[in-house]
Amino acid sequence: MIKPTALIITIGDEIIIGQITDTNSQWLAYHLYKDGFEIRKMISIKDNATEIIETLDSVINVFDLIVITGGLGPTNDDITKKSLASYFNTKLVQNGDVLNDVKEMVMRRLGSIDLNKRNHDQSLVPENCIVLRNSVGTAPGMLFKESKHRAITISLPGVPHEMKWLYENRLVPFFSKEFELKPQSYDLFSIMGHSESGLAHLLESWENNLPQEWKPAYLPSAGIIKLRLFRPTEQNYKYDKYVSQLKEILGKSIVAVNEESIQITISKILKSNQLTICTAESCTGGNIAKSITEIPGASSYFRGSIIAYSNDIKTSLLNVDNDTLSIKGAVSQETAEQMAKGAAEALNCNISIATTGIAGPNGGTETKPVGTIWIAISINGIITSKQYTFGTLRSVNIERSTNAAMLLLLSTLQCIYE
Amino acid sequence: MIKPTALIITIGDEIIIGQITDTNSQWLAYHLYKDGFEIRKMISIKDNATEIIETLDSVINVFDLIVITGGLGPTNDDITKKSLASYFNTKLVQNGDVLNDVKEMVMRRLGSIDLNKRNHDQSLVPENCIVLRNSVGTAPGMLFKESKHRAITISLPGVPHEMKWLYENRLVPFFSKEFELKPQSYDLFSIMGHSESGLAHLLESWENNLPQEWKPAYLPSAGIIKLRLFRPTEQNYKYDKYVSQLKEILGKSIVAVNEESIQITISKILKSNQLTICTAESCTGGNIAKSITEIPGASSYFRGSIIAYSNDIKTSLLNVDNDTLSIKGAVSQETAEQMAKGAAEALNCNISIATTGIAGPNGGTETKPVGTIWIAISINGIITSKQYTFGTLRSVNIERSTNAAMLLLLSTLQCIYE
Repeated sequence: MIKPTALIITIGDEIIIGQITDTNSQWLAYHLYKDGFEIRKMISIKDNATEIIETLDSVINVFDLIVITGGLGPTNDDITKKSLASYFNTKLVQNGDVLNDVKEMVMRRLGSIDLNKRNHDQSLVPENCIVLRNSVGTAPGMLFKESKHRAITISLPGVPHEMKWLYENRLVPFFSKEFELKPQSYDLFSIMGHSESGLAHLLESWENNLPQEWKPAYLPSAGIIKLRLFRPTEQNYKYDKYVSQLKEILGKSIVAVNEESIQITISKILKSNQLTICTAESCTGGNIAKSITEIPGASSYFRGSIIAYSNDIKTSLLNVDNDTLSIKGAVSQETAEQMAKGAAEALNCNISIATTGIAGPNGGTETKPVGTIWIAISINGIITSKQYTFGTLRSVNIERSTNAAMLLLLSTLQCIYE
Repeated sequence: MIKPTALIITIGDEIIIGQITDTNSQWLAYHLYKDGFEIRKMISIKDNATEIIETLDSVINVFDLIVITGGLGPTNDDITKKSLASYFNTKLVQNGDVLNDVKEMVMRRLGSIDLNKRNHDQSLVPENCIVLRNSVGTAPGMLFKESKHRAITISLPGVPHEMKWLYENRLVPFFSKEFELKPQSYDLFSIMGHSESGLAHLLESWENNLPQEWKPAYLPSAGIIKLRLFRPTEQNYKYDKYVSQLKEILGKSIVAVNEESIQITISKILKSNQLTICTAESCTGGNIAKSITEIPGASSYFRGSIIAYSNDIKTSLLNVDNDTLSIKGAVSQETAEQMAKGAAEALNCNISIATTGIAGPNGGTETKPVGTIWIAISINGIITSKQYTFGTLRSVNIERSTNAAMLLLLSTLQCIYE
């Protein structure tokens, strides 16, 4: 079976001038891939009729499916609908169903059925398209299927939740009728404690034994390398054996598998050992608590946090010693360890994570430059602490401190509980 | 003066199958635009030699500059360097400077000068390229300038901080010698309290008076609309007048200008009135504290937070009444208001923000479905509170609650202090 090929086009000046990051392409690529398409390319272009028409014309007989997002809003800068009507040689006509949808949406949002002209224009659609009605926004999707073109062309709004809703509720059912699709997937191993080239070196002979179609890809990011293997569609004994070998070679260096995050791996250990956790954060400013509470069901083990940005909160709520703060400083091993101890007591938890450091861009000194971070972890009263030296970028330092804290916690938990 | 045109190509299977969001394109587009290029297009393709060569060949005489990122790592899936050597008809040769750079990097990271073969291969470069030495990673950048091609082609590593470092330290100096560039910029107004079509309607006659090149673009997201105007390169009296008119029409609906965030607008009010702030978070799990502490210098007004996920922390640290929790429930106006009051007292702040709600996916009831959020704000003891009903997605609910809290705080602050 040959997989149908797909192309993703995102339209918007805001993308082309770098005002925003295009996240729609990633979401669409992920879902089209899983649903069975072979994605070949992603293109971003401006809100410009000539660009839209020329780009579409250059690809419409190269791919089986083209999914376009963006440029369907009610304002003058949105011109995708008009450009498509022109390319597909048709005119815009009012669609009664869409008009009702728009009225309902405006009623729900503003409590009025008075449509302004712009709302009204949202109900105009190219005469020869299949309309994809939108229950979560005012812009409908459009589907063009013409025998003279190889590709089916689909246009969706750029607002992410509307695009996603239309994909799931309108496109998935359409795809299953239109294409012969076989779902695809991959396995993803999050690995810590290795450099990219060190890991490739370690896996060299394992990798050499793999058939070509299973060759791994390596993706490094902030202390973790993600290794990807394309999983065969059917159960495959040989593939399973290669995966077992990988797990044997890497052991506990594999900190999460597939879409799981290290937070989920940690949550499993916490739940199965009935442990509770809290944080005491200074430089990370709540980011660790945020990353723990992103996981649904976190309330069964996460109890809370004390974010102690100012020193007197470190003393009043976390019981950090005033002398420690004045002699060793807020960014010190002693302060981090006292914060961890204080949080575990104040929030009555088995485990606490404490961070204190200089996130930057200011506040560094010669002995403690920007990027100096202390992390302490208390597990049932036993405290582990470690110093890190990151870079000068505030946001990156906060993110790396959060990752480092999670990795330190996981490796400590593994020593005790596994 | 005609602006040089630029194309961005990102290479990586992980992008094409939607495993990761490509953030390099946005960063490059933003900087190339500001530096004076006209970005025409962004393309993402697979780690595939044929695709790389065909794509490059189709654009090399269409644009003045092509910037490629990705596929320069030390593992077998990275093939950009080989593909470029083949396209530019040259062979890979060892570069002594790069070899020294790699040795230094490995020494710094691993404390050893033993290079494995993969590290060693990082020092091979196409013979006819200009090498862009990399001080923050092992993969050098490459620049190809051949008289027979219109475009100068540049290849950078895909690791974001290496790509950024090479852009700033190697490309910016090169561009200033190679191209005649005029920096460009735009003004961005963050507007709250309007729907997209309502805003366009309100601004209709103002917009009609604008010359074509200043026509605004509208970008809606989670309660805020960003309106963009391309700013003329020289001081322009007429443009300034249009901006003043816009500010007059919208007044306090403009919550931030340009790259400022609503957090920065709030920080200015806090600083100029010498106010301190803290948070008491349940459903947002630290995300509000995190968004406040992202701003450099936040320690001058942000003192700390109590994240009270479990009810007994709401009572023990925030002094929420036990009866309130059992009769009204944790997600109620009363609980939110008591949390705000308790936090302001415990953390000794002028202002506190409290959130309590059901982020989902579970925990909803008939009267309090998933997405029900209460936000309370205490300013010098005076408490404002408001209920919100968002959707069913946990991450979106956390993000929207955070935005809503910031907007509620700003509008309350504006009433009192401006």
